[in-house]
Amino acid sequence: MIIVMSSDAAAADIAEVVARIRAAGLAEHISRGTERTLIGAIGDERTLDPALFERMPGVERALRVVREYRLVGREIHPESSIVNIRGQAIGGRALTIIAGPPAVENDAQIAAAAQAVRAAGCQLLHGGAFLHSDNPYGFQGLGVDGLAKLGAAAAQAGLPSVSELADVRAIEAFLELDIDALAIGPRHMANTDLLREVGRLNKPVILKRGPAATLVEWLMAAETIAAGGNHRIVLCECGIKSLEPGYRALLDIGAIAALKAETHLPVIVEPAHATGKAWMTPSLAAAAIAAGADGLWLDVHPNPAEARSHAEQASTPAQLSTLIETLRPLAAVMNRSL
Amino acid sequence: MIIVMSSDAAAADIAEVVARIRAAGLAEHISRGTERTLIGAIGDERTLDPALFERMPGVERALRVVREYRLVGREIHPESSIVNIRGQAIGGRALTIIAGPPAVENDAQIAAAAQAVRAAGCQLLHGGAFLHSDNPYGFQGLGVDGLAKLGAAAAQAGLPSVSELADVRAIEAFLELDIDALAIGPRHMANTDLLREVGRLNKPVILKRGPAATLVEWLMAAETIAAGGNHRIVLCECGIKSLEPGYRALLDIGAIAALKAETHLPVIVEPAHATGKAWMTPSLAAAAIAAGADGLWLDVHPNPAEARSHAEQASTPAQLSTLIETLRPLAAVMNRSL
Amino acid sequence: MIIVMSSDAAAADIAEVVARIRAAGLAEHISRGTERTLIGAIGDERTLDPALFERMPGVERALRVVREYRLVGREIHPESSIVNIRGQAIGGRALTIIAGPPAVENDAQIAAAAQAVRAAGCQLLHGGAFLHSDNPYGFQGLGVDGLAKLGAAAAQAGLPSVSELADVRAIEAFLELDIDALAIGPRHMANTDLLREVGRLNKPVILKRGPAATLVEWLMAAETIAAGGNHRIVLCECGIKSLEPGYRALLDIGAIAALKAETHLPVIVEPAHATGKAWMTPSLAAAAIAAGADGLWLDVHPNPAEARSHAEQASTPAQLSTLIETLRPLAAVMNRSL
Amino acid sequence: MIIVMSSDAAAADIAEVVARIRAAGLAEHISRGTERTLIGAIGDERTLDPALFERMPGVERALRVVREYRLVGREIHPESSIVNIRGQAIGGRALTIIAGPPAVENDAQIAAAAQAVRAAGCQLLHGGAFLHSDNPYGFQGLGVDGLAKLGAAAAQAGLPSVSELADVRAIEAFLELDIDALAIGPRHMANTDLLREVGRLNKPVILKRGPAATLVEWLMAAETIAAGGNHRIVLCECGIKSLEPGYRALLDIGAIAALKAETHLPVIVEPAHATGKAWMTPSLAAAAIAAGADGLWLDVHPNPAEARSHAEQASTPAQLSTLIETLRPLAAVMNRSL
Repeated sequence: MIIVMSSDAAAADIAEVVARIRAAGLAEHISRGTERTLIGAIGDERTLDPALFERMPGVERALRVVREYRLVGREIHPESSIVNIRGQAIGGRALTIIAGPPAVENDAQIAAAAQAVRAAGCQLLHGGAFLHSDNPYGFQGLGVDGLAKLGAAAAQAGLPSVSELADVRAIEAFLELDIDALAIGPRHMANTDLLREVGRLNKPVILKRGPAATLVEWLMAAETIAAGGNHRIVLCECGIKSLEPGYRALLDIGAIAALKAETHLPVIVEPAHATGKAWMTPSLAAAAIAAGADGLWLDVHPNPAEARSHAEQASTPAQLSTLIETLRPLAAVMNRSL
Repeated sequence: MIIVMSSDAAAADIAEVVARIRAAGLAEHISRGTERTLIGAIGDERTLDPALFERMPGVERALRVVREYRLVGREIHPESSIVNIRGQAIGGRALTIIAGPPAVENDAQIAAAAQAVRAAGCQLLHGGAFLHSDNPYGFQGLGVDGLAKLGAAAAQAGLPSVSELADVRAIEAFLELDIDALAIGPRHMANTDLLREVGRLNKPVILKRGPAATLVEWLMAAETIAAGGNHRIVLCECGIKSLEPGYRALLDIGAIAALKAETHLPVIVEPAHATGKAWMTPSLAAAAIAAGADGLWLDVHPNPAEARSHAEQASTPAQLSTLIETLRPLAAVMNRSL
Repeated sequence: MIIVMSSDAAAADIAEVVARIRAAGLAEHISRGTERTLIGAIGDERTLDPALFERMPGVERALRVVREYRLVGREIHPESSIVNIRGQAIGGRALTIIAGPPAVENDAQIAAAAQAVRAAGCQLLHGGAFLHSDNPYGFQGLGVDGLAKLGAAAAQAGLPSVSELADVRAIEAFLELDIDALAIGPRHMANTDLLREVGRLNKPVILKRGPAATLVEWLMAAETIAAGGNHRIVLCECGIKSLEPGYRALLDIGAIAALKAETHLPVIVEPAHATGKAWMTPSLAAAAIAAGADGLWLDVHPNPAEARSHAEQASTPAQLSTLIETLRPLAAVMNRSL
Repeated sequence: MIIVMSSDAAAADIAEVVARIRAAGLAEHISRGTERTLIGAIGDERTLDPALFERMPGVERALRVVREYRLVGREIHPESSIVNIRGQAIGGRALTIIAGPPAVENDAQIAAAAQAVRAAGCQLLHGGAFLHSDNPYGFQGLGVDGLAKLGAAAAQAGLPSVSELADVRAIEAFLELDIDALAIGPRHMANTDLLREVGRLNKPVILKRGPAATLVEWLMAAETIAAGGNHRIVLCECGIKSLEPGYRALLDIGAIAALKAETHLPVIVEPAHATGKAWMTPSLAAAAIAAGADGLWLDVHPNPAEARSHAEQASTPAQLSTLIETLRPLAAVMNRSL
């Protein structure tokens, strides 16, 4: 940590900062510049809180030098991780496409969706059972029953299953119904209690970016899961709120390269959630693969115009098949298989 | 709802939109303009999903006309609500100041804080027991034990108590320890399951704005609580993420007037959370009162430079007293009592 | 335009709105719903100002139905435009790569850059002569002399030349030195006077997106140029300010598909300006091509570590060559030539 | 400046950084920590470009320690400045209210507005002559003729005059017509050429914040003016673009306290531009005064419902008078006169 003293800091102010650094078990290193004195705190700075220094007299700023995340960082784990979801490896040379309907609506619908997902050549089936929208009067999902229908359809189609978890009380159902992976949706990325519980499970987790989360906040959420012992984490970029009113969220395509530099975790992209517009999915899906993503999270519905949730963002089975066919040669150019 | 047809929409497209409107039990009203045909859906539009229309051929856009929130809206409840927390009325002529430490640390600390709150003339005591930060390695709060210490200190000081709830499993403790009001912190504003549970309780709720929530999203969160039966809701503006890197969040001072026009619920302001800088609190607290807020949520710590959490934003007891004294004549000018 | 009356609007309020619509030469169409009366204004709504209606008693909102831009819109000009810059066609099947240094520094540097641009197989040479930074004490560019050096180096390398224009007083120099295209930088996208002047020229314009501009604001800036008679406009997406502090701007990759739907103008992408990090350029450049961009604006410097401006974002000649080689097979997959 | 070396930096990398620091005439100070080596560059860091260091091998980050602005900073000029506009002092104990119509429309309108401004007890008259909107088909202002009408109306009412300047070619007219102060509108805050020209004038400048400008960018724009020799600068906070779609811009009320700490320049607030809603002006104007602003920029129009520009944000003469009367006791509480 670097403590920048203000230009009018007194010798006593500097002495107090030094004393606090030493009390925390670190050593100080003082640089007296022409306009400011800088004090470096040498040792494990993660035990220091910059805010405490910034409350001290004569201190202008306290800056962290080292990243706050360790377990998910590439610095101490340089090789890229591969996360295995019931035999499907995410993060290796093969791309992984997770597809399914925004919501499980009934047996026929999820079965038709599973069939479409399999026919298009995708690897995993997702389906929402516990929906979360701002509107208390809308469809809330089928709950545990929806989870069971998803599990049955996935087994029938021979695909691993994924569904969003939003409430710690539902974990039991995910385990009992043997759903293969949990997803944490954007509005729960910063739900610390939920992250802690998921950290104790032996289940892969797809952690979606919060609607306004910075990359560091997102990596700290992953770190919270990893700190509990669960290292099977896949990051899913799905856009962040922005100044552009034309779409629900702005897909942060730069996050792929930035995350690949910072973390060893696999990174996939969910294009349709970002824009809320199914017609934009092909352009964004191709961009994600070209940018280096390890896979995609796509929405498909047997009949989007009748979907009970997120009708605006689901593709038809035919659109999904066409999209995957379009992505294959692109994947090959990127030296990835699909 | 208004459905805007694209300029090349066919008669059959219009007929299908009309059929869907009628199927939902509403009536259509068609305006043929020079460039577009507009179709109004007349009836209770809350049963219609714009997304479903936007997936239909020939449809360019579907726009809601009526607000999505009802119970918390001023339209059907024109008089301002007053929320009572153990005898303290929030939303009337008297301003309400809720003060306390970001975290309950030990008996002596919370007792000293309670004493400072009372001495300064504030009305309620808050204290954090279940902390939520991005850092899994930091202080997480004392949990139920912290809640008990808060309750004891509040009782001792004769002040109603408030604490943040973040996990449905902790509700029991809030009820058993008879904490007088629940607060929902920014990162849980959109936690639908938590909002639903709180909607079933007979406890006042202070609902803080999410870190990137729009006013409508925030009001829909309040609507979710109200839809469960709990109408004792106070909104707390605490800033939203912005393009300005100089402070943690930008206090949306315009939200006070905008909310007062839209909702009958009381509105208070938390200046220090927004900026993360205690020295900015007096300027923002005064602005909030002048803008028409019903009260403030302030942080005070017996010794901020040793605070285990959010040291940067807590005021000292002396600063709190001075601030309240400064606000009194301002409140009088605004025709409010303090 | 649709005028939404408030629920308590009086008959006289409605009559006044109707009178104003008729006075503007349009016709009204009234829909009386259960909660609101809607009034459609039928005719050329571009002559109406929604703000004037919103100031009238009983009016809740006035909504435009038709887009404000016409000349640059795809609605009245469905085929994609091709913009020709001294024989180089932008917007057709062939991709266009514009490369050069952030600033012209001296004869040797711009000659070396031009040579690198040509050797890598790029089509146009850019170089900054009039720099604009927030820092009044930094390098401001060589001005007209830099423009002359750019022109000479471009002629020598047999490449068309492009440079940013920021002040109407410099237009003369661009014309006299026969620079082949003007670029309008982000901070001047909304400089109305400059746009108007450029609209009167017979020079192609590369219009970069403002640092916080919405797509509609950007298209209106293009409309301002087109309204003056100059229709040779290329849009250049270069990122917008966002909540992510990790890079200077967030590249809006969705803008490519969104713009292609709205406008007939060519769309290129400048990856390095967005991130301010040269190492992220290959990932973003590939994403832009995959998403459907018509070309790229890239920065190259003979020796980035000694660049007098924007050192952080310039690639070396070797990096540029490698990048173009990497993009060739990707372009082929996208059915584009490079 | 602090250069943070990456954990795998070689001794040769450190040596090169040191060599570059020395070549710039500064001295190095090396701190070897457990995870990183930090190198402090001691001397005038304004001559160093962090980007150049970040391009060097083994360098992770380069951080400025000292602010980039000097002339406008409070560090070297601790006393608050007072800017005099034809006898009106801005920045002292007396508050300054600048009021007028968004656009000068004709002689009668600007005369009526001037009369309203004077009757309400405001100190300066503003009026727009060169309008700037995204819409090329709308009213663009009366130009030089509008400026002349403003000057005449101001003289008639005995008020100093202020108008927005957006094009260097109009400076001559401002001087010839003896307009008392120039305002730089939000979209020109970063127009470097314009700032440089204004820096050479002997006229007070009201510099409005850009629509997405950070405080530092804004202060650097002021520094650009000051660097030219013109130190008569008043900052005008008018909101920045935000995630909240309910109003045009979010008024950054925290900017008042933050700027007062950083700069000696006076700070005023323009509430109506931020929100684009005249009915919100009283709440925000009161908040600005309570937060410590030195004055306000208000819009008034003899008949807002017929205004040719910005009808949504102008108050009526009666509303202006009422507002000023409301603010008087508030100003007194804040120990300011009005």
